[in-house]
Amino acid sequence: MIAIYPGSFDPPTNGHLDLIQRGAKIFDELVVAILRNPEKTALFTVDERLEMLRECTGQWKNVHAEAFDGLLVDFARNRGAQAVLRGIRAVSDYEYELQMAWMNRKLDSTLETVFMMPAADYSYLSSRLVREIASLGGALAGFIPPSVESKLRARLGVKFHSHR
Amino acid sequence: MIAIYPGSFDPPTNGHLDLIQRGAKIFDELVVAILRNPEKTALFTVDERLEMLRECTGQWKNVHAEAFDGLLVDFARNRGAQAVLRGIRAVSDYEYELQMAWMNRKLDSTLETVFMMPAADYSYLSSRLVREIASLGGALAGFIPPSVESKLRARLGVKFHSHR
Amino acid sequence: MIAIYPGSFDPPTNGHLDLIQRGAKIFDELVVAILRNPEKTALFTVDERLEMLRECTGQWKNVHAEAFDGLLVDFARNRGAQAVLRGIRAVSDYEYELQMAWMNRKLDSTLETVFMMPAADYSYLSSRLVREIASLGGALAGFIPPSVESKLRARLGVKFHSHR
Amino acid sequence: MIAIYPGSFDPPTNGHLDLIQRGAKIFDELVVAILRNPEKTALFTVDERLEMLRECTGQWKNVHAEAFDGLLVDFARNRGAQAVLRGIRAVSDYEYELQMAWMNRKLDSTLETVFMMPAADYSYLSSRLVREIASLGGALAGFIPPSVESKLRARLGVKFHSHR
Amino acid sequence: MIAIYPGSFDPPTNGHLDLIQRGAKIFDELVVAILRNPEKTALFTVDERLEMLRECTGQWKNVHAEAFDGLLVDFARNRGAQAVLRGIRAVSDYEYELQMAWMNRKLDSTLETVFMMPAADYSYLSSRLVREIASLGGALAGFIPPSVESKLRARLGVKFHSHR
Amino acid sequence: MIAIYPGSFDPPTNGHLDLIQRGAKIFDELVVAILRNPEKTALFTVDERLEMLRECTGQWKNVHAEAFDGLLVDFARNRGAQAVLRGIRAVSDYEYELQMAWMNRKLDSTLETVFMMPAADYSYLSSRLVREIASLGGALAGFIPPSVESKLRARLGVKFHSHR
Repeated sequence: MIAIYPGSFDPPTNGHLDLIQRGAKIFDELVVAILRNPEKTALFTVDERLEMLRECTGQWKNVHAEAFDGLLVDFARNRGAQAVLRGIRAVSDYEYELQMAWMNRKLDSTLETVFMMPAADYSYLSSRLVREIASLGGALAGFIPPSVESKLRARLGVKFHSHR
Repeated sequence: MIAIYPGSFDPPTNGHLDLIQRGAKIFDELVVAILRNPEKTALFTVDERLEMLRECTGQWKNVHAEAFDGLLVDFARNRGAQAVLRGIRAVSDYEYELQMAWMNRKLDSTLETVFMMPAADYSYLSSRLVREIASLGGALAGFIPPSVESKLRARLGVKFHSHR
Repeated sequence: MIAIYPGSFDPPTNGHLDLIQRGAKIFDELVVAILRNPEKTALFTVDERLEMLRECTGQWKNVHAEAFDGLLVDFARNRGAQAVLRGIRAVSDYEYELQMAWMNRKLDSTLETVFMMPAADYSYLSSRLVREIASLGGALAGFIPPSVESKLRARLGVKFHSHR
Repeated sequence: MIAIYPGSFDPPTNGHLDLIQRGAKIFDELVVAILRNPEKTALFTVDERLEMLRECTGQWKNVHAEAFDGLLVDFARNRGAQAVLRGIRAVSDYEYELQMAWMNRKLDSTLETVFMMPAADYSYLSSRLVREIASLGGALAGFIPPSVESKLRARLGVKFHSHR
Repeated sequence: MIAIYPGSFDPPTNGHLDLIQRGAKIFDELVVAILRNPEKTALFTVDERLEMLRECTGQWKNVHAEAFDGLLVDFARNRGAQAVLRGIRAVSDYEYELQMAWMNRKLDSTLETVFMMPAADYSYLSSRLVREIASLGGALAGFIPPSVESKLRARLGVKFHSHR
Repeated sequence: MIAIYPGSFDPPTNGHLDLIQRGAKIFDELVVAILRNPEKTALFTVDERLEMLRECTGQWKNVHAEAFDGLLVDFARNRGAQAVLRGIRAVSDYEYELQMAWMNRKLDSTLETVFMMPAADYSYLSSRLVREIASLGGALAGFIPPSVESKLRARLGVKFHSHR
């Protein structure tokens, strides 16, 4: 059983890694997949995010990271995946997640969405929150892996610099 | 009893039509109403959306489509309407819908908001989702009427073209 | 258009009356309907509740109260009703209400459930809360009509007595 | 990968079967498991429910039904299961499901709970609703398999009889 | 500022203690208050629960435990309290908590309800869950203080014995 | 006990003032704090919002308004505050509020977030709603204080003018 774990991962957080670890136990192969979305501005490029994901997930042999264009269901079919993995946490999340799962089922009825729950302490963690804290100069230990933190500091430093 | 069914309808979906059909049974007259909102960018112009709504709702004699400026409560008063019709589905929706209903009641205490539930299979359908699927090249059968689909393909084709 | 407003009304609260008043403006005729449920113990008998509802709703000429056995959809068909009226307030409520609306639609697809919102100040009011406050000796002004309050005090007084 | 799908199944509904079918595609083996709970009264005995489940799930070779005592995590360990399968639908559900998943993770951190979404049309279906409709004499087609329906009618008929 | 932290505490959990510790920092005095509710059956008597609470909260000098009859607002007034402390976690919780806060405000507009959030890891913990795990023989470390655990084991042992 | 009540207050509403009044009773000192966020466009400048807040909160001697840069936890530490005050109303709100409270606890574990409930009639009120109604020419009595209303009308008049 191959599963796709799609997301923006801008940047990857400890909550993402927690879920990847759980998914890697359930599925034979787990593809962490970044949608190339030219209309959405991101802090890190797709290639930077891929590199960060690869660094953080190297310890799990059945996990690898890729980027994709177009519909998730088409990417899943190309990779021979029969499942999409998603994390569920808070309610707002949940509604959106069910909507996505419903849409993907409509587009390809053979593709099942499977939800897993991250560790309770990551319930409220998100990439947006991490970017916000970082931009205000807050400490990020416990939120993101050290390798991601240094890249985030570097990026935001450059950004701030260019504003002056 | 005249009711107003306000929305963006950018584009109309099968979920909207399902609700219009249900509302047309309850109310003597149902006005499907598009707010002219110059600050919000839309995929289709107000006139294009009116035309699509008129094509899709032609079979119900007590339904017609209009656009309006300003406050919904003022438009409702002008049309002699005593009710606003809204669909309710998921929770996030629901909160927003109650907020709108509360605001309209504050602005005009004689105007009642009436909620109806679309078919369960349209619970997760939205215009935004339709635009997203279409822009990624996905199949739209079951989500929108065929006449809307051809217009959406044409519109997004032009858009893609201009990007190249 | 005839609508049924079903409930337990054990006892009727100001929230119920608020909704009845709103429904009476939208529908030509509104039947406030108590389910005879022999398996559920109630504080007031069905006849007592009918009497309380009739006293409280006398001012609206198109409202009357009745009791029914069996399925709501059968009762609605017998009365020529095409709509069920329900109030929506908080989320827990909302889930249950959608479930009931879905079930009734499955049992009779011609019967539509229509939701209206009570005044914001009744958002958290329920018959259960009223019984609880009354049993602890709290003041009930603003929660229930005076005629209901006197009956509730009488009932709980008798009950307490019989416990000694 | 072996997964446990725990529940009361009093009686099994089409929503349960829909989820079992989905789980049977994801997992190598799926154990549908009824908790023997002597403190909770049920309409059908554990043995009757096992029989119904076995009849309804016969077409899936990697599915079988069992009853268990004690903690789910102990039963899972005994069966060599690493996953618990649960359906998620409405919000109230969802909260409870996350609570159970959290508890089971606390009791055995190697056991993962995996959530899947039933078909949208079963979003509001539950065994309790089925029992309620049946007791009021409503039609059950589309809610439960025919074999379950005949047993349910038989059971409730006997019950009604004993009341007279 | 004196605050009341009302609850059943049947038995007290680590989630309760977490909230008591947080409340003890915000308020000058915190009264942990058990409602004597003769209609609700509990595993531990009010006196046993008071004793457990006193043992667990001894380290905080501005915290003490009491039982009360009747309305919370009356008890608060007698103690000179101007605030009620409650924990908020999941959504279902939240609805109920807002309802209680609204009711208490209606009964005494000078009494404010103040909500605090327990540690994320206690988000899903409840006394009911603890009783359930204990009755099935599960490990309780991390859920309740050791002194409570021994009393709970003793109580459930006796109970089981009397069943045989 | 000093508490911070952070927000955008663009503009302050009667819901904000209701919460400030409640907080002023619970805390010895309440600092209403506007985040200077150069990336977010606002209708009123930070200085205008400070002036409006000061006018509206003059009657409470233990309340004052300030603006801050950077992380809320740093501002709270600088002011000697041990609590953050936030209002809770609807569910969507609630999720976001818990996320913020969790983040602030992670950044400074000594800082507690305390939630209070505004008057039920302000449950659905927000600054965004007020700006929307004002821009469409609707009446704002009951939503915002008169002094804020005149400034809002002036601001939006200028804005409309500059568009022509």
